[in-house]
Amino acid sequence: MLDVTYRLQIPHRAGQLARVTTVISKHEGLIGDILTVSLHRDSTEREITVEMRDAAHAWALANDLNALEGVRVIWHHDRAFLRHEGGKLRIDPIRPVKTVQEMRDVYTPGVARVCSAIADNPALVSRYTMIGRTVAVCTNGTRVLGLGDIGPRASMPVMEGKAVFYQQFAGLSAMPILIDTKDEDEFVETVVRIAPTFAGIHLEDISAPMCFEIERRLIERLPQPVMHDDVHGTAVVTVAAAIAACRHVGRRLDESVVGQIGLGAAGYGISSLMHDGGARVIAFDPDPRSHDRARAAGVEIVGMDELLATADVVVATTGRPGLIAPEQVRAGSVVLALTNPVGEIEPLVARAAGAAFAADGRSVNNVLAYPGIFRGALLAGSDRITTKMKLAAAWAIAALAADGELVPDVLDQQVHDAVAEAVRAEAVAEGLGRPEVVPAGL
Amino acid sequence: MLDVTYRLQIPHRAGQLARVTTVISKHEGLIGDILTVSLHRDSTEREITVEMRDAAHAWALANDLNALEGVRVIWHHDRAFLRHEGGKLRIDPIRPVKTVQEMRDVYTPGVARVCSAIADNPALVSRYTMIGRTVAVCTNGTRVLGLGDIGPRASMPVMEGKAVFYQQFAGLSAMPILIDTKDEDEFVETVVRIAPTFAGIHLEDISAPMCFEIERRLIERLPQPVMHDDVHGTAVVTVAAAIAACRHVGRRLDESVVGQIGLGAAGYGISSLMHDGGARVIAFDPDPRSHDRARAAGVEIVGMDELLATADVVVATTGRPGLIAPEQVRAGSVVLALTNPVGEIEPLVARAAGAAFAADGRSVNNVLAYPGIFRGALLAGSDRITTKMKLAAAWAIAALAADGELVPDVLDQQVHDAVAEAVRAEAVAEGLGRPEVVPAGL
Repeated sequence: MLDVTYRLQIPHRAGQLARVTTVISKHEGLIGDILTVSLHRDSTEREITVEMRDAAHAWALANDLNALEGVRVIWHHDRAFLRHEGGKLRIDPIRPVKTVQEMRDVYTPGVARVCSAIADNPALVSRYTMIGRTVAVCTNGTRVLGLGDIGPRASMPVMEGKAVFYQQFAGLSAMPILIDTKDEDEFVETVVRIAPTFAGIHLEDISAPMCFEIERRLIERLPQPVMHDDVHGTAVVTVAAAIAACRHVGRRLDESVVGQIGLGAAGYGISSLMHDGGARVIAFDPDPRSHDRARAAGVEIVGMDELLATADVVVATTGRPGLIAPEQVRAGSVVLALTNPVGEIEPLVARAAGAAFAADGRSVNNVLAYPGIFRGALLAGSDRITTKMKLAAAWAIAALAADGELVPDVLDQQVHDAVAEAVRAEAVAEGLGRPEVVPAGL
Repeated sequence: MLDVTYRLQIPHRAGQLARVTTVISKHEGLIGDILTVSLHRDSTEREITVEMRDAAHAWALANDLNALEGVRVIWHHDRAFLRHEGGKLRIDPIRPVKTVQEMRDVYTPGVARVCSAIADNPALVSRYTMIGRTVAVCTNGTRVLGLGDIGPRASMPVMEGKAVFYQQFAGLSAMPILIDTKDEDEFVETVVRIAPTFAGIHLEDISAPMCFEIERRLIERLPQPVMHDDVHGTAVVTVAAAIAACRHVGRRLDESVVGQIGLGAAGYGISSLMHDGGARVIAFDPDPRSHDRARAAGVEIVGMDELLATADVVVATTGRPGLIAPEQVRAGSVVLALTNPVGEIEPLVARAAGAAFAADGRSVNNVLAYPGIFRGALLAGSDRITTKMKLAAAWAIAALAADGELVPDVLDQQVHDAVAEAVRAEAVAEGLGRPEVVPAGL
C-alpha cells in the first residue's frame, strides 16, 4: 500500500470537493488528511492524501481526477518520499557562536581548559560533552524491516527514523552508525572502538543468529547499556500488549499460555521476556537451529497446530504475510501478528474469526519502548539494561493502554515519560544507579 | 589565561561601575563584555568578563570585589565551562512527527518504500538521507591542542567545537567519532567500516607520524573526501595568511622564502602546501625522522639560525611557547607563531622586534578553512580534496583579508561561502564534479 498525496486545484464552489471524493471512492482509495494549501479567487489548492494499492493505481486515480471539469492535478507523490527529502536529521549547535568572546569560550583557548578538566576527572565528560545523552543506532543492514539484507546505506532511512524518536520522545541525541561488515568479530570490534563517543548502544536490523552473538559480546565488553531493539524493544511492547490483553479478558499473564510463532530476533526476545514475565511459553519455528537458544530461555518447542490450539496469546513474527488462516484462530485468544508491513493475519479477520483481541505490527510499535528505556537507563547512570528494567517498561506501557486497546498512543508523551521513570526507578532499586555519570541537562 | 565571568550585584547609582572597574584594573584584569542581566529598584545585576591569569587570581579579584561597600559577587566562573555545560551539540529531527500520518511516512510502512528505492538505485541515498551532508570528525585524542595525548573522551570538547562550526558556517552536520585505539591498522579499519554513514571524513588531533599514514590509507580506500584538518586546514589558513602578508609588503608568495619551524602534522602540511603554492621552503625540526617526508614534498632542511636569518615568512608550529627570542626576528619578516594557546613569540613582541606582520594561532584559525573546504567538495560531488582545491581555498581566504590584516574575520559568513564556492569551482574545473551525488538541500 502507498500513501499518496495529490496536490489539486479545485473550483471554489459548493459541491466540488464532493466530486473529487466521489472519484476517489470509485477507485477504492482510503482518504486521509485533506489540507487547504492556498485560496485563489476562483479556485482552491488542496493536498489530499489517499491510501492506494501501488504506483499504477495512483496514476489511474490522477488521470481520472484530471479528467474532472475544472479540476487539475498539480502533482502527486508518495508521501513517504516527500517526508524523506534531504534526510530526517540535523546535527546542530546548542548555542550558536556569535561573538569573538564566544569563539574563545568554545574553541581555543577556552576549550583546552575543559579538555584538561576531563582528562583529570573523567566523570566530567557527562557534564561538559554531549556523550552522556547520546546513543549510537548501529546496523549492518542485514535484516531491515521485511526487506531483508539491503545493506547499510539503504537501511539509513530506518536508522534516521529511530533517531528522530529518540530526540522527540526522550530528549536524547541518537546518531545512526552504518557498519559495513557481515562479520561478527569485525562488527563487535568496530562498535567497541567507537563506543567512547556514546552513552548507549542501540543495535538495529541485524540478522539472526549473528545479532545474538554481537549483542552478547558487546554487553560483556562495554561499560554502557547495549540493547538490540528488534529483540528487546519489540519484546517489551509485545509483553505490554499481552499484559493489557490478559487484563481485558480477566486473566494474568503469569497464568496464560503464550504461543510464539517464529524464533528470529524478535520472536526469541518476545518468548524469553514472556517467560521471564511469568507466562508458560510454547513456540514454533521450522528452523531447528533456533530451538536450542529458545529452550535455554525456558521456552517449550511444539508444532504449529498444537500451538494454535493451545495458546491464550498467539504472537507471530515470521516475515510471512497471511500465514495464519482464519479457521486456525482459537476462540477468545489474543492474536498479535507483527510482521510488517502486512501481518500473518489481518486484525479485522482475526477478530471476525473469534479472537478476543487482535493487532498487527502497526499497533505494536517498538517506538513505545526504546526511547524511554534508554532515557531511564541513562537517567539512573546504569551500565546495563536488565530483564527487570525491561519488564518495568512493559508494565508502564500496559498501564497506560486505554480500555479496549492493547497499547497506548505512541504520540502520547506521557507514555515515554512513564517508561523512562519506571526503568530509572528499577535500575536504582537494583543498585545500578551511578549519580556521578548522569549527564547534565537530561 | 582564563576568561572569568563575574555575576555582580552593584548599587544602582552613578559611579558604582567605575568603582568596580577600578578594582579590576588594580588586579591587571583585561575587561571584556559587560552585560546587564537584571534591574532592581536599588541595584543592578551585571555579568562582567575579565581575562585573568589563573584560578587563584580570579578568586583574589572576587574577594576584593566583594569587599566593596554595596557590591556582591553572586558567583564567578570560567566562561568556557559555562559554555560547555551539557555539551555543545544536539541531533534533532528536521521535521517533528506530530500525527499518525506523519509516523506512517517516516516509519513503517512508509520508510520501507524509501529503503527499497535506495537499494534499487544507490545514488538516491544523497537525496533521501542525511548522509550526503554529514561529516565524521574522527580522532583518537593522541595530540589534542597543546595538551598532547589526553585520550579520546577528554578530546570530545574539541570535536564538538569543530562540529559546531560545520553547521554554523557550512550547513553541514558533523558528528564527533572518538576512536579508542592508537594502532594505525585498527584506526583505518574502524573508519573504513563506518564510512558509509558519512559523505566526508575529517581527521582531527591525531599524533604524528601515525596521522600521515592513516590519512594516506583512508584516502586510498574510501570513495569520499578525507582530510586531516591539523595538516591541511592549518596549511590552507597559513598559506592564506602568507599570501596576504606578501601582498602587504609588495611581494608574491612564489618569490618568497618561507621558513617552517617544526615539522609535525601542521608543519608538514604548511611547508608542503607553501611549496605547492610556489614558494621556496626551508624548514627546521630537531627530530630527524621528520626530514625525509618534508624533503619528499620539496622542502629543504636547514638549521634554526639559518632559517631565521633567511626566511621572509617564518611559520612556527612547535608546541614550544617562547621559542623565538626577539633578537632572532629578521627585520621586515612575517612571523606566524601558531602554537596554542601561547605561541613561540607574542605578536606584539615580534612586531616591536622588527617584524612587518606577526600573528599567533588565535588569528590564524583553521575554522576559516575546513567548513568551506568540505562544503565545496560535497557541493561538487568530488570524491577527494586536491592540492589545487586547497590552494583555491587559501586564495579565497586571502582575498577577503582587510588591509593590514592577515586573515578575514572568522565570524564573517562571506568568507565561508567564498571558500566553498572556490573549492567547488576548482573541483569541477578538475573534472571531479559528480552532480548525481550532490545531496538534496545543501
